[in-house]
Amino acid sequence: MPISRRTALLGGLAPLVRLSAQSNTNTAPIEKWGLFAVAFQSSAAGNPFLDVSFTVEYRHRNRTVEADGFYDGAGTWRARFSPDSEGEWTWTTHSNRADLNGKTGRFQCVGPSARNHGPVGVRNTWHFGYADGTPYYPFGTTCYSWNHQSEALEEQTIATLRTAGFNKMRMCVFPKWYAWTQVEPRFHVFEKQHTHFNPAFFQHLEKRVQDLLDLGIEADLILFHPYDHWGYANLPPEVDDRYLRYLIARLGAYRNVWWSIANEWDLVKTKTLAHFDRYFRVVRESDPYQRLRSIHHSKVMYDHSKPWVTHVSLQDDDFNKTQGYLDTFLKPVIYDEMKYEGDIPRRWGNISAQEMVRRFWLATTAGAYGGHGETYLNKEEILWWSKGGTLHGESAPRIAFLRRLVEEGPAGGLNALPNPYYPVAARAGEYYLWYLDAHQPVEYEFPLPDNVKFQAEIIDPWNMTRTPVAGTFSGKAKLGLPGKPNLAVRFRRS
Amino acid sequence: MPISRRTALLGGLAPLVRLSAQSNTNTAPIEKWGLFAVAFQSSAAGNPFLDVSFTVEYRHRNRTVEADGFYDGAGTWRARFSPDSEGEWTWTTHSNRADLNGKTGRFQCVGPSARNHGPVGVRNTWHFGYADGTPYYPFGTTCYSWNHQSEALEEQTIATLRTAGFNKMRMCVFPKWYAWTQVEPRFHVFEKQHTHFNPAFFQHLEKRVQDLLDLGIEADLILFHPYDHWGYANLPPEVDDRYLRYLIARLGAYRNVWWSIANEWDLVKTKTLAHFDRYFRVVRESDPYQRLRSIHHSKVMYDHSKPWVTHVSLQDDDFNKTQGYLDTFLKPVIYDEMKYEGDIPRRWGNISAQEMVRRFWLATTAGAYGGHGETYLNKEEILWWSKGGTLHGESAPRIAFLRRLVEEGPAGGLNALPNPYYPVAARAGEYYLWYLDAHQPVEYEFPLPDNVKFQAEIIDPWNMTRTPVAGTFSGKAKLGLPGKPNLAVRFRRS
Repeated sequence: MPISRRTALLGGLAPLVRLSAQSNTNTAPIEKWGLFAVAFQSSAAGNPFLDVSFTVEYRHRNRTVEADGFYDGAGTWRARFSPDSEGEWTWTTHSNRADLNGKTGRFQCVGPSARNHGPVGVRNTWHFGYADGTPYYPFGTTCYSWNHQSEALEEQTIATLRTAGFNKMRMCVFPKWYAWTQVEPRFHVFEKQHTHFNPAFFQHLEKRVQDLLDLGIEADLILFHPYDHWGYANLPPEVDDRYLRYLIARLGAYRNVWWSIANEWDLVKTKTLAHFDRYFRVVRESDPYQRLRSIHHSKVMYDHSKPWVTHVSLQDDDFNKTQGYLDTFLKPVIYDEMKYEGDIPRRWGNISAQEMVRRFWLATTAGAYGGHGETYLNKEEILWWSKGGTLHGESAPRIAFLRRLVEEGPAGGLNALPNPYYPVAARAGEYYLWYLDAHQPVEYEFPLPDNVKFQAEIIDPWNMTRTPVAGTFSGKAKLGLPGKPNLAVRFRRS
Repeated sequence: MPISRRTALLGGLAPLVRLSAQSNTNTAPIEKWGLFAVAFQSSAAGNPFLDVSFTVEYRHRNRTVEADGFYDGAGTWRARFSPDSEGEWTWTTHSNRADLNGKTGRFQCVGPSARNHGPVGVRNTWHFGYADGTPYYPFGTTCYSWNHQSEALEEQTIATLRTAGFNKMRMCVFPKWYAWTQVEPRFHVFEKQHTHFNPAFFQHLEKRVQDLLDLGIEADLILFHPYDHWGYANLPPEVDDRYLRYLIARLGAYRNVWWSIANEWDLVKTKTLAHFDRYFRVVRESDPYQRLRSIHHSKVMYDHSKPWVTHVSLQDDDFNKTQGYLDTFLKPVIYDEMKYEGDIPRRWGNISAQEMVRRFWLATTAGAYGGHGETYLNKEEILWWSKGGTLHGESAPRIAFLRRLVEEGPAGGLNALPNPYYPVAARAGEYYLWYLDAHQPVEYEFPLPDNVKFQAEIIDPWNMTRTPVAGTFSGKAKLGLPGKPNLAVRFRRS
């Protein structure tokens, strides 16, 4: 017997799906890339997680998409779907349990609302874009276990993110145990045994993914990691796979989800490379949406040329290697960890705000993307990189400033030009963003195309100013400069 | 007929040799590593440069050293010698001209004066030292053609060097023609034809080398370079070799001379690698003192493992390669060009003062040495790196500050420790100099040896302060730090 979504409030949480009203019959329309959801009641006898199969077939014209449903506890089965085509969709359930089998319904998929650009995918080999064609340039941050903190702290993180200017969040599904992060999480993944998922854990995770979606932030979900305290890094293979499928059944329909198979995979001493290859394959097989997939290393880079990897997620800060990665993998490159702004006694967590900003500029002008994190000590031990909270540093607004510059650029993304004297990200003939770093020439002859007129601005990445230069420029464009370091110059076709 | 050195003033210049009074007989004593000089008159008929052979044998106990003399114009032949052993030396001339042949004399070599530590040589594989055992740590600068400028400007350069804190000068023998350096030199190397050297040119060069010696500055003389306007980069081989021998005959006895076979040898399009190999061999054969020898490249590094190369002179600023160079060549490494502080529209000449200082710290803590240059535009077109004059930048006092720190260190020089989290130059068990660069931890546990007590200082390389930390440290030494970037920490055995 279908139950209305509107009544399916979970433990006082907001409705799971806020994108659209829905029912299991053929009532309210669902917006394209929105979230259709339907729920059924059945008996909770036995182990519904293991004993009951439950999938839903969705049909639009001649196309069929199959998506797994899931057991959400308390005798409730749910199915979610994110349609990518406007028009009528019909659905049919398949289950080994009679009262969950053969249910049908229909819904209309209508055009997306204004802030809904669809999921992010790879575009132009080295870049990203939303499904509606809007470019997406990742300027992400990292709060590995912000979603495992107190309600108040999690809400504070959301409030910080509202204005911080980031559009991607690296976060772990499993709770994390690590220096400055040694707290028991509010929810555990399993109830008693590995045979029973804890629905409250996943409901909470969904709420936080939805919060990010509401803020326009992609959720780069880390599926495994080595900072374990509870055995999550050492589950039996069948439990790992069940976890992945269950997670995808629940979260795959959220259009802002990315799958990061692991963080620092090579530090997970309980697993070999073969484990991670298998996880990639399980995710690829189970995800009807083929959300973005990558994996993050510490010392040993995963082979990102494997076909299931959609983009390269790096821990590195030698940006001279970027072109090699771009040329080798022919995929977008994100330096998700370039070390973090902060002051902790770890080398990876104590670079200055100036250096953090500098690395974003170096990543960007190398034709790649950067990632932020912040690790300032405080007596509460709430470090942004792990628990979220508030930002104490100075880099975030400067990163947002760079993001605005890049978003004002050409839609196809910027690629590094070969062998420049100074790094330059460009769309040849249209747009050139030079970064002068420690160089401070009082003038420089920028090599622009002949016969195309450009307007120039001198950009101060730290003070977040752009100063237009009078006149237009083409060919060998000599520009007077302030003779101080850490500046950038932008040329745009006029 | 010998003429007194005291009367041999040349064109109003100060006496050529100021280290010691001298005569050609057996009068005034010469200090060890000082300069003995003797002169003879003969006929200037024919071509004395080509027609007359003139060498002098110096004998001390059972040892003989042969050094070429030279024709100095106006019928004067000179010979110079720098004795390295105290006691009586005798000498005998050899010439194909009767009135220059078979002259003899003797002098007493006495102990060196207070500021005379002898010539610099290689010590402890990767370092340098004076002949008297005093360590020498090169903190050099570059004024390629300061010695080809007006008298007033050259004297200004000398005045600047008096307090600038550098102890090595890279400078070209031949005049230089290059951007911001397009002036005719005061003196040319040849008179009319390549068959006749111009003694005034060399007398002037000697004066400037002596000026540097008086300031305690090593003269890293560049013998060939590509910035040519007068044909000096394209002389016939026999002229090249004669030039080298003549130069060595005149200048080899100055204890502060180093031979840099070429600057940017790979940019000298008129020559091949074989030329430079030959120059090395000629210098090695002709120099009785075996002064330091190296060569400097632009893009193509010379093979510094060749036996005639005493140390590695690099143009680079990737200090991660340093250990590779040290391990490969087993010779001292000097980053003679790490780009220059300045603001000219050339990438190699417009790094900030902060970056110049940073590179000195990176070179030092990598177990190598750095080199300074300065290229600030000014309407007089007097850029330090080329013409000398005055310094306009801010790095020089900070480099001198680092030099003092290093000179206060252990006498054997500092070597990089392998795989540090932050670069550290050390004499294990005695002295550790850490450079934190863009890192700003509020505390850090420095790995010191157990059972040895160290005193710590927090060093601010830019503000040139050293702040002692109370107490002593050993083992895993946790130190509170100011939480700001660009600091260093020094531990010294207490």
